[in-house]
Amino acid sequence: MSRPMNRRQDNHKISRELFVLTYGALVAQLCKDYEKDEDVNKYLDRMGYDIGIRLIEDFLARSAMRKCRSYSETVDVIAQVAFKMYLGITPSVSCSNTTENEFFLMLDNNPLVDFVEELPPGRSSLCYCNLLCGVIRGALEMVHLAAEVTFVQDRLKGDDVTEIGITFPKRLEVKKHKRNK
Amino acid sequence: MSRPMNRRQDNHKISRELFVLTYGALVAQLCKDYEKDEDVNKYLDRMGYDIGIRLIEDFLARSAMRKCRSYSETVDVIAQVAFKMYLGITPSVSCSNTTENEFFLMLDNNPLVDFVEELPPGRSSLCYCNLLCGVIRGALEMVHLAAEVTFVQDRLKGDDVTEIGITFPKRLEVKKHKRNK
Repeated sequence: MSRPMNRRQDNHKISRELFVLTYGALVAQLCKDYEKDEDVNKYLDRMGYDIGIRLIEDFLARSAMRKCRSYSETVDVIAQVAFKMYLGITPSVSCSNTTENEFFLMLDNNPLVDFVEELPPGRSSLCYCNLLCGVIRGALEMVHLAAEVTFVQDRLKGDDVTEIGITFPKRLEVKKHKRNK
Repeated sequence: MSRPMNRRQDNHKISRELFVLTYGALVAQLCKDYEKDEDVNKYLDRMGYDIGIRLIEDFLARSAMRKCRSYSETVDVIAQVAFKMYLGITPSVSCSNTTENEFFLMLDNNPLVDFVEELPPGRSSLCYCNLLCGVIRGALEMVHLAAEVTFVQDRLKGDDVTEIGITFPKRLEVKKHKRNK
């Protein structure tokens, strides 16, 4: 059913509203299919993963991005280039710890919930935008970076902000050996 | 769950690939849910309709479009403004008859099938892009234009081109009465 992506020269820019409404239809369908919020969340993440492992090729071709040298640089690219390209927004990035393996993307303005005021009735554990976590996870895996990606805060659940957490494996500390002279 | 659309001034342009892949996930999910192609087609059309009746508000606000004076003008706006805005393409338009109520949009380059080479196995009657027909039908209904909208040709089904047919109700012919002097 699928074929490799062809890099065409035509205009790839679209208004995002049709996408946002189509995404809403997808979530609604999954809520119809799966009774438990956890199952919907898992399925959105898995769908996102499948999308991410394909989208990365388009992203690398379009952004002409070179290899990042640190987790921090990688997360900056996700926020400033990838989110801008595919969702038209630029989340702010913060890092929670000194080992520099836990990051947070704060989405001040999340277009995916443009038409959504609150979670559907009886769906209080739904991670409405969980597809995004899967997309990031899948795309990172294709550049050989394992990561856990989850929503850590969500305005639709009453939090003050919407925030995606990205956790990479801790780097092994490089032991410094003093040379014996 | 929903709220009225707010016209924001920020950048609404996005790359279409995430949308196209998300649409693919939606179609795949419906194929999982419904055994018969006809049911998937119907459901895609219905989802599209629900999207169209909401998208029209965004379209009218963003395009600053005035009222069209003929079916022909309406179809030109759909092809040249709406398709360009939401899918980044401009289908060519043709009219099949002298009563000017049957039109065809030819999609030379359909982004929704960018990642699709052929229909899934056993799905030969699937109208993969049927959501679009529903979107057009729903949007037209909101400007008080009833229309039948269907795919009349589809490259994924082996046709030479992909073509959407839009049929409006026939206009009643205005009878000319000669005045008796």
